Amino acid sequence: MHFLSPLYLQNYRNNYNFAPYFNSIFMNNDLQIRWNSVQKLLAKAGSDACLIATDVNIYYLTEQVFMGFLYFPAEGKPVYFVQRPLGWEGEQIVSIRKPEDIPALLHARGIPLPENLFLEEDQIAYSELVRLKKAFNPAHTGNASAILRQARMIKTPWEIEQFRISAAKQAEAYREIPAVYREGMTDIEFQIEIERIMRKHGSLGIFRVYGRNMNIFMGSVLTGNNAAQPSPFDFALGGAGLHPSIPIGASGETIRDGTPVMVDMAGSFTAYLSDMTRVFAFGELPAEAYRAHRLSMDMHSRLMESVRPGTACAEIYEWSIQMSEKEGFAANFMGITQQAKFVGHGVGLEINELPVLTGRSKDHLLPGMVFAYEPKFVLPGIGAVGNEDTYLVTDSGIEKLTVFEEDIIKQSALS
Amino acid sequence: MHFLSPLYLQNYRNNYNFAPYFNSIFMNNDLQIRWNSVQKLLAKAGSDACLIATDVNIYYLTEQVFMGFLYFPAEGKPVYFVQRPLGWEGEQIVSIRKPEDIPALLHARGIPLPENLFLEEDQIAYSELVRLKKAFNPAHTGNASAILRQARMIKTPWEIEQFRISAAKQAEAYREIPAVYREGMTDIEFQIEIERIMRKHGSLGIFRVYGRNMNIFMGSVLTGNNAAQPSPFDFALGGAGLHPSIPIGASGETIRDGTPVMVDMAGSFTAYLSDMTRVFAFGELPAEAYRAHRLSMDMHSRLMESVRPGTACAEIYEWSIQMSEKEGFAANFMGITQQAKFVGHGVGLEINELPVLTGRSKDHLLPGMVFAYEPKFVLPGIGAVGNEDTYLVTDSGIEKLTVFEEDIIKQSALS
Repeated sequence: MHFLSPLYLQNYRNNYNFAPYFNSIFMNNDLQIRWNSVQKLLAKAGSDACLIATDVNIYYLTEQVFMGFLYFPAEGKPVYFVQRPLGWEGEQIVSIRKPEDIPALLHARGIPLPENLFLEEDQIAYSELVRLKKAFNPAHTGNASAILRQARMIKTPWEIEQFRISAAKQAEAYREIPAVYREGMTDIEFQIEIERIMRKHGSLGIFRVYGRNMNIFMGSVLTGNNAAQPSPFDFALGGAGLHPSIPIGASGETIRDGTPVMVDMAGSFTAYLSDMTRVFAFGELPAEAYRAHRLSMDMHSRLMESVRPGTACAEIYEWSIQMSEKEGFAANFMGITQQAKFVGHGVGLEINELPVLTGRSKDHLLPGMVFAYEPKFVLPGIGAVGNEDTYLVTDSGIEKLTVFEEDIIKQSALS
Repeated sequence: MHFLSPLYLQNYRNNYNFAPYFNSIFMNNDLQIRWNSVQKLLAKAGSDACLIATDVNIYYLTEQVFMGFLYFPAEGKPVYFVQRPLGWEGEQIVSIRKPEDIPALLHARGIPLPENLFLEEDQIAYSELVRLKKAFNPAHTGNASAILRQARMIKTPWEIEQFRISAAKQAEAYREIPAVYREGMTDIEFQIEIERIMRKHGSLGIFRVYGRNMNIFMGSVLTGNNAAQPSPFDFALGGAGLHPSIPIGASGETIRDGTPVMVDMAGSFTAYLSDMTRVFAFGELPAEAYRAHRLSMDMHSRLMESVRPGTACAEIYEWSIQMSEKEGFAANFMGITQQAKFVGHGVGLEINELPVLTGRSKDHLLPGMVFAYEPKFVLPGIGAVGNEDTYLVTDSGIEKLTVFEEDIIKQSALS
């Protein structure tokens, strides 16, 4: 198992030329697992190779980020075609100015041009993909985004370790949240202090999203009626936001005694995002809030007890809906005016990976999947309650990665 | 001229249904200017209409963000096809589930299907654009990204007002920077406090970038040798970053007496980003640092004195290079191991708009353009110096929007 050791980070920081680390990649067993997984899927789809251009997939396949293209064949070693940074050197690294340089350079290395080239059709802009197609002129093309998304769904040991680091740090950071609350604060003032705590614990600040950009800054803090505001984005809950250009999350609402504050931040302490929501309360909440929050906790208990490898994602969605109906909270579940049609989602390098816990899902949970489960309730006139945790599917069940206080957290509770 | 008044924000936050604001759009003269500009460019390109799907272009054309598609014809009023949020109502608003619903709904409104439909080819993923093309099946298509990018290059009075707000708040925030410095801090510890100051002054936190995602969190703080580290991204300077997944910016380097600290944050206090870099010093710097910083200030002075509407962007790049050569700083200008090939760039809703101040540019500065000029020097063993300011091109010259102390700022200087 490969760890991101302090020594590695030190090497990373001190070397202009990253080649020494690059060469070590070829001894990294964990990376080899990911390569094998993608190669198997490429072969199955009849593809000779894919050309990867997005940061997120380049990082997945190299544990580094560069500007350029990773030529990743269904068989054999990948070739790094690097535009920037300048100065990278290594057996499999080739410096290029533009993608049109690649075919001749492949030829020079004795690598035949792919007949069936897969490109990241769901992630690369139309004009760039057309340009790449023209440069390679392959007989057939296919969608590398779908291949990578499928491969990334099952996490490797090193990836799982990254989640553990993120989740542990997120719990450490959340422990400090009650202490920064001051009476009369607005949601955004509170959020700013939470962001600072997260950053001081090592949050990289990045919130990676698959698909059309959903602008959000580290996460969301919702209190009172703002929790009921629908948003254009595909998050579990909304919030009006501070500005029409970013209509999501905190809106400047003052935190009042007796209203819950829902803190839902992405744990980006490594490249792999843990996702955890907790509810904080300053003063007593109405009994209904505790009752709905208890229901969310019960739903997490049922998840822990019932889910096994092979469990259908749709099944989790169905019993979650049923439990909310049985307790009379169906109209409050996952929003009010606009109810999210999922109760959880895969996490990884991006916050919204596969599988999706929704009624329409055909996916089944498999060992190595990491997903967030987030049964949440919006109570009119009160606010939002419910927890979100990140789980790992193991060989025999699931393991909660975001281990932290689960009741509604009072200001004095953790100090 | 339309301002983002507190009352508007209040209305915005308090209404689930945004229709009241939407209807006022049709009385908004400034928005009409932007519509006219895009319609003129569409007509010139022979396009009947464009279909806009990206947040940034939807905001440009509506001052709101929704998930869905803005049907924007070369003649007549646009139609908002809204997937989310639910509940929007208005004369020009149509709720849809999927883009394939649009053609029939246009037909029902008596709007003929476009024969030459422009789509955001440089911004929308390949597969989504292909899907849209299939849904409309137009005889001809073209690139709406290029049209919008060109229109957005010339800012309207309301947009310019947004920059003024952002720039003024950024200056207020920068004024508080020296006070949060503590001896022995690392670059990232200092950056976290700067981020907090920015957020407390109203920063929305978003750093919008055109093109392939360049991951960065609000901005960058560079000190000492880290300033010389090349990055994969297309920023003026690099920095190793904290983690291989985000190789840019602060790296955990301790701020030492006698090393400059370059603070380059995006002023996202409105949707329009001001861009300002300042250098802070804790202790005396070597004379070379003051000399190079003085040269950067002289270059800004020359810019202020010489630039007029009609000035070629390439010309600014050329004399900037020449000035750095003349003073013996050519090898330090815009980086060392990897030198940026531009000295400035347009700013707007995104940090890298048109025009680009580079040797290859064919653009000329025109009234209404807003751009950042950032002559910077990396001095080996010392760090980075030089200012960045955001300028507005007026009818007679240019106006500096980011008005703030320009010398290297000592800890005690602003307190």
